[in-house]
Amino acid sequence: MTKVPATRFEIEAQNGEARAGVLTTRRGRIETPVFMPVGTAGTVKGIRFEELESLDLDARIILGNTYHLWLRPGIEVIKAAGGLHRFIGWDRALLTDSGGFQVWSLGALRKISEEGTEFRSHLDGSLQFLSPEVSMEVQAALGSDIVMVFDECAPGEASHEETERSMNLTARWAQRSKTAFDLLQGNGADTGRLEAHGLSSRQALFGIVQGASHLDLRRISLEQTVNIGFDGYAIGGLSVGEKKPVMFEVIEEIAPQMPKDAPRYLMGVGTPEDLVEAVARGVDMFDCVLPTRNGRTGQAFTARGKLNVKNARWANDSRPLDESCRCSVCRRHSRAYLRHLYIAGEMLASILLTHHNLAFFLDTMRGVRQSIRSGDFPKFRREFTEGLIANGE
Amino acid sequence: MTKVPATRFEIEAQNGEARAGVLTTRRGRIETPVFMPVGTAGTVKGIRFEELESLDLDARIILGNTYHLWLRPGIEVIKAAGGLHRFIGWDRALLTDSGGFQVWSLGALRKISEEGTEFRSHLDGSLQFLSPEVSMEVQAALGSDIVMVFDECAPGEASHEETERSMNLTARWAQRSKTAFDLLQGNGADTGRLEAHGLSSRQALFGIVQGASHLDLRRISLEQTVNIGFDGYAIGGLSVGEKKPVMFEVIEEIAPQMPKDAPRYLMGVGTPEDLVEAVARGVDMFDCVLPTRNGRTGQAFTARGKLNVKNARWANDSRPLDESCRCSVCRRHSRAYLRHLYIAGEMLASILLTHHNLAFFLDTMRGVRQSIRSGDFPKFRREFTEGLIANGE
Repeated sequence: MTKVPATRFEIEAQNGEARAGVLTTRRGRIETPVFMPVGTAGTVKGIRFEELESLDLDARIILGNTYHLWLRPGIEVIKAAGGLHRFIGWDRALLTDSGGFQVWSLGALRKISEEGTEFRSHLDGSLQFLSPEVSMEVQAALGSDIVMVFDECAPGEASHEETERSMNLTARWAQRSKTAFDLLQGNGADTGRLEAHGLSSRQALFGIVQGASHLDLRRISLEQTVNIGFDGYAIGGLSVGEKKPVMFEVIEEIAPQMPKDAPRYLMGVGTPEDLVEAVARGVDMFDCVLPTRNGRTGQAFTARGKLNVKNARWANDSRPLDESCRCSVCRRHSRAYLRHLYIAGEMLASILLTHHNLAFFLDTMRGVRQSIRSGDFPKFRREFTEGLIANGE
Repeated sequence: MTKVPATRFEIEAQNGEARAGVLTTRRGRIETPVFMPVGTAGTVKGIRFEELESLDLDARIILGNTYHLWLRPGIEVIKAAGGLHRFIGWDRALLTDSGGFQVWSLGALRKISEEGTEFRSHLDGSLQFLSPEVSMEVQAALGSDIVMVFDECAPGEASHEETERSMNLTARWAQRSKTAFDLLQGNGADTGRLEAHGLSSRQALFGIVQGASHLDLRRISLEQTVNIGFDGYAIGGLSVGEKKPVMFEVIEEIAPQMPKDAPRYLMGVGTPEDLVEAVARGVDMFDCVLPTRNGRTGQAFTARGKLNVKNARWANDSRPLDESCRCSVCRRHSRAYLRHLYIAGEMLASILLTHHNLAFFLDTMRGVRQSIRSGDFPKFRREFTEGLIANGE
């Protein structure tokens, strides 16, 4: 146990369960609730780092995928560059997942044992092995500011028995992750080590609560995870096929019971309305591929709901994607132009939609934070939800 | 004939045949020699307009393709938006080609008559017809600042007889272009009309010299074109399959004979060394898809020659693409990272390579202009050429 923490988290305002605070990492200050754009392979797809840093977006932390980076370009390349930050050219905070979820997503291509997970690479079919120890080693080499434990996920519809087995394995893997992590930090394996005022300069490690849709198991998993002790706590295994009400039932039951003085991170969720609803239940951190992935397939998120740029009704529409948005795309370009770019297969369509969607997600979180601080979160939440039903019009 | 010109062109320095000057259009001041990035379908592929405007690139004029825009999104859409500038969100100067070259490139899909060219759309196979009158009408609706006459191109290896026939057709089409253009300008068909100090507020019209590799025909074509009288003069029909020495022979013969008080535009050429060599022969304006197209296929242009980012030898190379380049890509990213992005099929590879390549072309032209003004162009030309042979290393 370190006396000096790797991250510091302070709640500064609360509206019901919704919390506004600040998570301080060795690479800067992150206001919460926060949305983290996903940078799977060392790039948030379709957007330059300069744009992520611009006031338009001002993303304070992005996510990298251990699984993808480990397979390509490989850890030796990133180590040689001096860690992931230096390899990709990003000085702000980075969170890396453990690879557990990606390997789990491979389905029939993986074999899980007590020791870890054997799987075939989606790139070349080669046999690979990931375990808590390997994942911690890879994440230390990546030098991310927040490391996630190596966990196992259960399908949304998993039975109680199956889920219990998986959850207990996750708990044992969490302990092994913690042990390996501490050893690596002690040995200086962390390529991201950085002096930071009042912090230990170490990476932070977050635990993950599993348990699928079974509330009793979720509670046990939370207890197991808190007993080990982490710098932050995540809810994993949601948005993996279960119904929306089930997801919110789990969040509503678990988030408020999570340690109040640590950040709460809901992994892989979700739509803008999901984010606002999860904040209302006490969640502080989010990541999701929706703004980037859907941007590439022509879908814009707006304050008036989703908008499909392909739609013929925008052919002569001179309005911006979102009339209430002040991002550089909405200040400059019309729906008609974006539709043309998309139909013509132009890369700029993906670039601009990705930018706007990220701006919308990050702006939404800014609005959430401000409203919690001013005590107006219930009003923000109501108006936000009402606005979305306009369906882009 | 207007008394007040649509553009103003002034030569301010000369080194041998190389000229440095200023072309003033209704949308601003363009220092020459100038390179124009190609924005075929209303977007310079892979780059945002904000980047084109940034000091890194500072492109003062870009090119749009009449053929592509006419077929998609179609002229009615662009007219409804108030012209191409407003449709795409670009306030600086735009030059549009006439569609002649694109239609000519369709090969067997086109049928040329005295009246114009019948062809099948590359998008849906529909039968279409382009003529001088149609091209002028479309370009007036686009509202580009510089309009090109509708011409016919002859293949690089065309016989004297074939080329002569083609050249004479081009001359008749040039006169018809001029007549139709003047009528349209008088009728206010130009959607880009804009008050500009000392200029007529009209579009400018450039003529095109054809004649393939036959110097006698090139001279006749130049005379025919100058006799009609245009705001600027282009050399067309080069870089279409002929050998490099043949291309330079034509440029060397024709460029110095072109009117000294009008801009000379070499269409569709070329590599950085081609640009510098053509400047040395008296050319002022260029456009080419090389920096953008090759950027998308992993090729970087540098002061030390071309560099293929896919190459395994860059896997751990922390150097920027071009150590003498100060663009935002070279300031931030390594060859190792760019290689990783390219191999992983990430869009950011194209975005960053496109940016750097455009920066390199535009920087080269800045260097050309400065050296002509300081009287050091021969030295610049020699050192530039010597640097390129290092082949990326």
